[in-house]
Amino acid sequence: MTADTRLPSWRPGATRDTLLEFLDAARSVPRADRVAYFDNDGTLWCERPAYVQLEFFLSALRRRVADDPSIGERAEFAALLSGDQGRVGELGLVRVALALAGLFEGFTPEAFAAEVRSFLAKATHAALGRPMSATVYQPMLELIGELRRQDFTVGIVTGGGTEFVRAVSEDLYGVPAELVVGTLIAYDFERDRSGRPGLRRTGRVLGDANEGPAKVTNIQTQLGRRPILAAGNSGGDREMLEWAVGADRPGLALLVDHDDAEREYAYAGKAGTLTESEPITETALRAGWSVVSVANDWETVFPG
Amino acid sequence: MTADTRLPSWRPGATRDTLLEFLDAARSVPRADRVAYFDNDGTLWCERPAYVQLEFFLSALRRRVADDPSIGERAEFAALLSGDQGRVGELGLVRVALALAGLFEGFTPEAFAAEVRSFLAKATHAALGRPMSATVYQPMLELIGELRRQDFTVGIVTGGGTEFVRAVSEDLYGVPAELVVGTLIAYDFERDRSGRPGLRRTGRVLGDANEGPAKVTNIQTQLGRRPILAAGNSGGDREMLEWAVGADRPGLALLVDHDDAEREYAYAGKAGTLTESEPITETALRAGWSVVSVANDWETVFPG
Repeated sequence: MTADTRLPSWRPGATRDTLLEFLDAARSVPRADRVAYFDNDGTLWCERPAYVQLEFFLSALRRRVADDPSIGERAEFAALLSGDQGRVGELGLVRVALALAGLFEGFTPEAFAAEVRSFLAKATHAALGRPMSATVYQPMLELIGELRRQDFTVGIVTGGGTEFVRAVSEDLYGVPAELVVGTLIAYDFERDRSGRPGLRRTGRVLGDANEGPAKVTNIQTQLGRRPILAAGNSGGDREMLEWAVGADRPGLALLVDHDDAEREYAYAGKAGTLTESEPITETALRAGWSVVSVANDWETVFPG
Repeated sequence: MTADTRLPSWRPGATRDTLLEFLDAARSVPRADRVAYFDNDGTLWCERPAYVQLEFFLSALRRRVADDPSIGERAEFAALLSGDQGRVGELGLVRVALALAGLFEGFTPEAFAAEVRSFLAKATHAALGRPMSATVYQPMLELIGELRRQDFTVGIVTGGGTEFVRAVSEDLYGVPAELVVGTLIAYDFERDRSGRPGLRRTGRVLGDANEGPAKVTNIQTQLGRRPILAAGNSGGDREMLEWAVGADRPGLALLVDHDDAEREYAYAGKAGTLTESEPITETALRAGWSVVSVANDWETVFPG
């Protein structure tokens, strides 16, 4: 018997065995049911010390403030720029996020995507000493590759802004725009002076932020297929993971446990939105999900 | 020189030439921009004498009324069952459509899809003497095939209910669920007694009906890519067609003109929702769209 050369960045052990068994079993699943969805931040790439998307908006904010310092006086922006996490919490994350999203009000989809790509082409992760675009997890790229070899449809279901992730999802993960579901900013339809139609970003969120139960309803309305594999790392992914394994057929729920302070970060995801909620790894054990230990299961964390 | 054997059901002429030139030119378009969206009713399959989706809901209504005649006394249903189009118009199409959608309130997505498939497996188009599933337009199937051979992403953007079209889009057109955008019914997330999560259809429409400008905003929010080819047949497709050709790069807008009373139906699409609005073919001529004459451009209308 020759060794299985799939998933080379996954260390031999129970987690890798589970993945390989799942991949083999999927051969007998109807192709239309071979659907896998991944959370993005903390599941496909590093989310510490801050979400990449937050860094993007902060970078845009700093440029605006450099042009016009009065912009920085707005309460949400003042709290962000001073790094006052307590004040950000008082104002509420939703209010702060909407203020940031408002920086791009009036942008066309193409102009916004160009800003995102331009940011990510230059941004570096100081602590990890690599481009932010290279803080994707190599083992997850390999898993996505194996899923595609088994004719899976692979999508991203993120709590972050949809259009931010779409701007980079093809380059980072080979995932096309239509397979990205996130939190949506509404567009206004308008015509220019010559009557040509176009779209402009508004300051409004469309529907609910894509977290928790909303990940499940948004998958159904926007993608229309229930996954047989879901991967996440926080309480916002809980319902999606439960849904992937809760049908009367085999399914796999993967939970990334960030337990590697040496190579990445060590922090406990919470099962709910409250700080007193249990660690999500305990929910995972009770539910029978597969917990992916960064420290133990991953031979390599980032691309070489 | 050998004859071009592509699009065999399209008669030689200006329309077919335009399509072949577009297909050839697309070879130099970046792959991510090779995106084509088709309206469904009247563009990919026959919409006369009634939308297939309406026939589906009427069939469900008749079964319910057979079990419980009192259901048929509801104003919307009484008008439908008596075929009183004037009364349906008085009540309003939105109200009538919502009443019909309510017949499946509480259904899971899977149960609803099974009902649709079961209906379409048996339903026949009496006037055309063929299964309803065989009232798809053969020339459009060939065009979709050629687009895919050029690595296009092909989606359906319909005014009809999204989940109805998704239930059959893979079988009829090879279009996966995530590439169908239509009018959405909201879901409720719920847990069963053992705590397993699931979804149930509600009686509420999510956002706007997918017609007119909403087709453009919904394409951007749900699919995230602007098309370089759009095809439609009515005023509800107008903005989508304008958007496909309104960018600073080549694009193609196709408008199906139902002018063949002998092989299908002859009727004039309207440019707007008002009966006094101009025929959409006149809008097309002014805008430089390609008008597809069923009578003249199609050698074959339906699959053999």
